[in-house]
Amino acid sequence: MEEEFPEIQPDGSLLLAWQVKDRPVLVVGGGDVAASRVYHLLNANAKVTVVAPKISREIQHRYENNQLFELVQREFEDEDLTRYENDSEFQRLTRQLDAPDLSSKQIDELDSNIENYIKNHRFALILTAIDDPIKSKYIYLKAKLNNFVINVADRPKNCDFYFGSIYRNNYLQILISSNGRSPRLTRLINDKILKPNLEKEGVDFNKIIDNLGYIRNNLKTIVGQNNKIKERMEWIKNLTDSYTFEEWSKFEKKDLDNFLLEGKLQLLKLE
Amino acid sequence: MEEEFPEIQPDGSLLLAWQVKDRPVLVVGGGDVAASRVYHLLNANAKVTVVAPKISREIQHRYENNQLFELVQREFEDEDLTRYENDSEFQRLTRQLDAPDLSSKQIDELDSNIENYIKNHRFALILTAIDDPIKSKYIYLKAKLNNFVINVADRPKNCDFYFGSIYRNNYLQILISSNGRSPRLTRLINDKILKPNLEKEGVDFNKIIDNLGYIRNNLKTIVGQNNKIKERMEWIKNLTDSYTFEEWSKFEKKDLDNFLLEGKLQLLKLE
Repeated sequence: MEEEFPEIQPDGSLLLAWQVKDRPVLVVGGGDVAASRVYHLLNANAKVTVVAPKISREIQHRYENNQLFELVQREFEDEDLTRYENDSEFQRLTRQLDAPDLSSKQIDELDSNIENYIKNHRFALILTAIDDPIKSKYIYLKAKLNNFVINVADRPKNCDFYFGSIYRNNYLQILISSNGRSPRLTRLINDKILKPNLEKEGVDFNKIIDNLGYIRNNLKTIVGQNNKIKERMEWIKNLTDSYTFEEWSKFEKKDLDNFLLEGKLQLLKLE
Repeated sequence: MEEEFPEIQPDGSLLLAWQVKDRPVLVVGGGDVAASRVYHLLNANAKVTVVAPKISREIQHRYENNQLFELVQREFEDEDLTRYENDSEFQRLTRQLDAPDLSSKQIDELDSNIENYIKNHRFALILTAIDDPIKSKYIYLKAKLNNFVINVADRPKNCDFYFGSIYRNNYLQILISSNGRSPRLTRLINDKILKPNLEKEGVDFNKIIDNLGYIRNNLKTIVGQNNKIKERMEWIKNLTDSYTFEEWSKFEKKDLDNFLLEGKLQLLKLE
């Protein structure tokens, strides 16, 4: 008998939760679409630089409330892509990483230096939302040859990634995509299916996430970070599935500590 | 009175629908986590290269079914990151794009050449899933200094992006993220809220997406690609919202053509 592996369902996107906390992001353009990009970026704690000769009231508002990292009020220039780069620092890090036989201590040190370089000097994403299709395409090509990740509004062909409809409730985030086929439908699914079902009377998903996070982290501490990983995951899965969303919304710290006590006993019995 | 703009809800991720169709992606590692990465990548039509000395049965299965672009059965080497790059071709494209005063025709030509370069020579993403933390970190640093986008399994600090729980029904794709706090909960939301509500008797979201896509594309043809964009969007929004998901699942081509006739009359009246 042939083994069964999940069958490929082609023609989708790769849906990902991008981490841009404290990382520089460049937005070229100052209109409503640019403002919507800036909003999503700020929700993910990015350091946003906007380059545009004219800006909308929303971007003005972000700027006045110190939500932008930098506002550059002029047309885009090629050098903006590498606006914060520091060539000598970059060359130094590259030479250090290329040295033969690095010790793990040296790698750790380089890790934090390269992390710093990335957070201070390198754009994690480039987004353009300008009305000029030729210029858009030119910025796209410049960005790609310099190995940047870019989204060009209104030019799906020139996008490494698309946006979609977002449901957000603190730690819980959901992206709905129709793979470009019906953006309106994704908003309807958000309004008519996600919101009513995720914000029901008696159910609080942020409380649930807090409660499950408390159990997960404390169990790790009790049993040991690198001990019984599979057993821990299995135990948490069973516990999570044993109660309804309503019940998980109501549990208090003493209930959670009781669960942890049970978990400790059960996992130690396995030794 | 101060204008109201959406308030920032910080500490989230930036949820994105990544486009990797026909683009090379490198997976370092051959175990179960690597296999799950490969599965997600193949669902988005990526050209997947796996580098690993030993591979799981699932990856073996993908390879035997010609689903991988290349399988390299040995340990990772630094040169793997630029495995398909072609320096002289890349330099040529860079010189061409740097030429002063490019015409829009020249930019179009470069667009397709650079697109080809990216699809044939450049990794769009790097994913590692190996048991060696020092080596993982080293690959991460190499990748970042070369401006690649990377996810290192089990090392959240060394990730440009995270995966989450995915609901998939053909064109409809949904990503559920707890921002790392409770992966199990995201799977429960998938099973207990998304599946039952999106796969109800009498509701077929793929039919709905097809129907709404048919209307969107045909209206564009009738009214003209660049005409009345705002009015078209508004009309489609109103139409979409006027019927239930059940009704949209039942409409046939003749119903849609009647809607389009109404739309045409209404939008032409506006002239």
